[in-house]
Amino acid sequence: MMQRFPLRVYYEDTDAGGVVYYANYLKFAERARTEMLRAAGISQTRLREEEGVLFVVGDVHIRYRAPARLDDELVVESEVTEVAGVRFTMAQRVLRQETLLAELIVQIIAVKPGDGDSMRPCRIPESVMKALHADSALKT
Amino acid sequence: MMQRFPLRVYYEDTDAGGVVYYANYLKFAERARTEMLRAAGISQTRLREEEGVLFVVGDVHIRYRAPARLDDELVVESEVTEVAGVRFTMAQRVLRQETLLAELIVQIIAVKPGDGDSMRPCRIPESVMKALHADSALKT
Amino acid sequence: MMQRFPLRVYYEDTDAGGVVYYANYLKFAERARTEMLRAAGISQTRLREEEGVLFVVGDVHIRYRAPARLDDELVVESEVTEVAGVRFTMAQRVLRQETLLAELIVQIIAVKPGDGDSMRPCRIPESVMKALHADSALKT
Amino acid sequence: MMQRFPLRVYYEDTDAGGVVYYANYLKFAERARTEMLRAAGISQTRLREEEGVLFVVGDVHIRYRAPARLDDELVVESEVTEVAGVRFTMAQRVLRQETLLAELIVQIIAVKPGDGDSMRPCRIPESVMKALHADSALKT
Repeated sequence: MMQRFPLRVYYEDTDAGGVVYYANYLKFAERARTEMLRAAGISQTRLREEEGVLFVVGDVHIRYRAPARLDDELVVESEVTEVAGVRFTMAQRVLRQETLLAELIVQIIAVKPGDGDSMRPCRIPESVMKALHADSALKT
Repeated sequence: MMQRFPLRVYYEDTDAGGVVYYANYLKFAERARTEMLRAAGISQTRLREEEGVLFVVGDVHIRYRAPARLDDELVVESEVTEVAGVRFTMAQRVLRQETLLAELIVQIIAVKPGDGDSMRPCRIPESVMKALHADSALKT
Repeated sequence: MMQRFPLRVYYEDTDAGGVVYYANYLKFAERARTEMLRAAGISQTRLREEEGVLFVVGDVHIRYRAPARLDDELVVESEVTEVAGVRFTMAQRVLRQETLLAELIVQIIAVKPGDGDSMRPCRIPESVMKALHADSALKT
Repeated sequence: MMQRFPLRVYYEDTDAGGVVYYANYLKFAERARTEMLRAAGISQTRLREEEGVLFVVGDVHIRYRAPARLDDELVVESEVTEVAGVRFTMAQRVLRQETLLAELIVQIIAVKPGDGDSMRPCRIPESVMKALHADSALKT
């Protein structure tokens, strides 16, 4: 199921080229993913505190199609496209009305703290698994 | 030819996970690309003002290997891997000493302002072409 | 008249101290000011394009009372407290429910491009003046 | 003693007004403060891990005098102007060569984690006290 997250472009998002700075699309995409999980009843803060599980981004592929500008009203569309044991993949698109501005493929990995500062992949908690399948485009 | 750009991690770069926020690697990568061009005698400000040419990022693929943390001293290694008519490609790696933290493939497109707000691809200026070939790993 | 602007804290806003990074309160405050002007029918983009007038921040005094954290729902309260010929002053407060997190006094100056890169103060446009007085706590 | 910290303005620092975004001066100022402490042999990471002491910003007053732009080489000058039991004050100035761009007065408070999420002020550790006095303009 595709989720839509609306947002507004402010000065903080733009750069001297007059457009949204290229790294900031990753901020927009994360806000949308967070709200998608929240809408499914999943709090990342609670997961971290209660189960010691963190979601980290393992890989991002982003294509920039057209620039966003100050004051633009954008929408981020997000969809789970794949769920495996320790990771899931999301397709996200940033749009201004019908115009596609950027497309992302984001891989998320569930991790637990290991020795010292290290993190090791762990199974996605069951509660998240269910939410992801409900939100996904996958036939399950 | 591979260029090395050193940088330090400050609070502004980190997030509540205790590590560098994932979008900020794109900032580090751009600082390194800018200094690489500058070292080759190319000022993006001058290019824009005198020739009306801007470089925009068309595509980024980034893989996160290990987290960077507050106070870390990092190095961004950058290398031109392909130069075509209107675009060039760079491979970049973020390291803490010998540890690889992130790898990026970044495609840059030369553009000129078109009608209204639009941008259309244009040939990379000759001066930049020379610098890129000098900086690249390419046999020319 | 006091305006209230709600916002959510995301990872991008936090730092390795586990709290919202101190500079980011200035981002929150600007989003709130922008929406306040927009609610009064004032588009900064249009002002710049049609009248050549920009609003720049001349002075900020911010007091940090208590930290905001990931996932917090905040509100920025904004009020115009003084309007002079070329500048106006706003009092802003960032709250989490009843808890005051930060207080700002922000001075905004209307400017027009002068020679070269310079900016010189100019009278606040009449349309903005009216909106500010309507939004202000001032007896007029 | 006045400390000088050099930095370069990149796209990430600028906004659609063509100048450095107003919140980013606080980032520049913090980089300079961090390097000043580091130069005095003080690691904030070590202080936090070994003594449980954090430095938080309690109050900032910033005046914007002239805009910084893309590619500018700036210097942040920093000086300790007051040291009390739990807090110290710094005067900072951002310059482009001889031109003053911004002036800050920043109050820093030493804190320790209290109950729950709270922080309570604590005495500045002796090692820091010495470094601050050595770095300050104060007659001691």
